[in-house]
Amino acid sequence: MQALAEIQVIPLGVGVSVRKEVKQAHEILVSSGLGIQAHAYGTNVEGELAVILAAVAKIHQTLHDEGTPRIATSIKIGTRTDKDPTLAG
Amino acid sequence: MQALAEIQVIPLGVGVSVRKEVKQAHEILVSSGLGIQAHAYGTNVEGELAVILAAVAKIHQTLHDEGTPRIATSIKIGTRTDKDPTLAG
Amino acid sequence: MQALAEIQVIPLGVGVSVRKEVKQAHEILVSSGLGIQAHAYGTNVEGELAVILAAVAKIHQTLHDEGTPRIATSIKIGTRTDKDPTLAG
Amino acid sequence: MQALAEIQVIPLGVGVSVRKEVKQAHEILVSSGLGIQAHAYGTNVEGELAVILAAVAKIHQTLHDEGTPRIATSIKIGTRTDKDPTLAG
Repeated sequence: MQALAEIQVIPLGVGVSVRKEVKQAHEILVSSGLGIQAHAYGTNVEGELAVILAAVAKIHQTLHDEGTPRIATSIKIGTRTDKDPTLAG
Repeated sequence: MQALAEIQVIPLGVGVSVRKEVKQAHEILVSSGLGIQAHAYGTNVEGELAVILAAVAKIHQTLHDEGTPRIATSIKIGTRTDKDPTLAG
Repeated sequence: MQALAEIQVIPLGVGVSVRKEVKQAHEILVSSGLGIQAHAYGTNVEGELAVILAAVAKIHQTLHDEGTPRIATSIKIGTRTDKDPTLAG
Repeated sequence: MQALAEIQVIPLGVGVSVRKEVKQAHEILVSSGLGIQAHAYGTNVEGELAVILAAVAKIHQTLHDEGTPRIATSIKIGTRTDKDPTLAG
C-alpha cells in the first residue's frame, strides 16, 4: 500500500541539541530508498507503508544502539484509494 | 523492542461521524494482543514495536477494503533503554 | 468555540526523566479550569479553545522560567458545529 | 515568546478532497504575518507563539463559518531559551 508519511524523531536524554540524532534518523530514511523531503519539523516520505514502518523501527533500534536512552517519535500516515498520495501532490 | 504508542485514526470521505471506522480500528488493536487503553483522542498501546506497526498497517488495509477512501493516522511511539515503557508507568 | 484537545509536552535538555516537567504542565491545565483527563500519552482537555491555547502558552512560559531550555509540544484540537465535542462523548 | 510550529488542518465531513479547506487555512497563516513554509504534511510557521495560536483559532472559526462541520488540527510547537528557533535553522 502506497503511503505519504511524516516522521519526526525526538531523542531525550542527550541534551538540548538533538542535531546528531536527527541527522542519523534522516540518513536511515535516505538509505531506505523511500522518496524523502526534509523540512523544519521532520521528514516527509513517500513509498510502501511497510517500508516506511520498517525504517521507523530501524531508527529506534539504531539510535538506542548508539546511546540515545529515550526516543519520542511522531508519525503521520496518509493513504487513499482514489489516487496515489505523493509528495509532489 | 518494547514500546508505548498512541494511535489515532482519522477516516476521510465517510462523513462527519467517524464512529464506525474508529471502532473497527480499535477492534483490530484489541485483537492484536497488545495492551491497550482507549481514550478520547486515540488508543494507547504497549507491546512489541513490530506488532504495533503491523497493527497500524492492518488498520489501513482493513478500513480501505471496507470502503473508507482516505485515512490520516497519527502515531506517537516511545521507546527507552533505561526501563520498559508501560501504560501503567 | 468549544473544543476537545490533547496536549503532550516533551521537555528537552532536562535528562531522561521528564516527570517533574510533565507534572507541572498537568497542574497548569488543572488550574485552568478546563475539563481534563490525563493518560499515558498526554492530557485530554475540553473547554473554550481560547482558554486551551492560553494554557499551552502558559505551560511553555512556566517551564522555561523554571529552567527547561527546550520544549516540544504536540497538540491536537477538535471542533465541530454539529454538536459539542466532549471528553465523555 | 518566539516559537517554531507546524500546523496541519484536517477538515471532516467535506468529502475525500480537502484541498479547498487546506488552501484557506494556508491563506490565513499567510495573512497572519508569520514566517511560513508549506510542505506536504502541513505548514511550518515561525513567530510569536501568541500570534501562532491566534491564527489557529481563526482557522477553526473561518472554516466552520464557511461550512466545514468538523475539524481535526494537529499542532507541534517548539520553543527554546538557548537560541531563537527559526525555520532556517
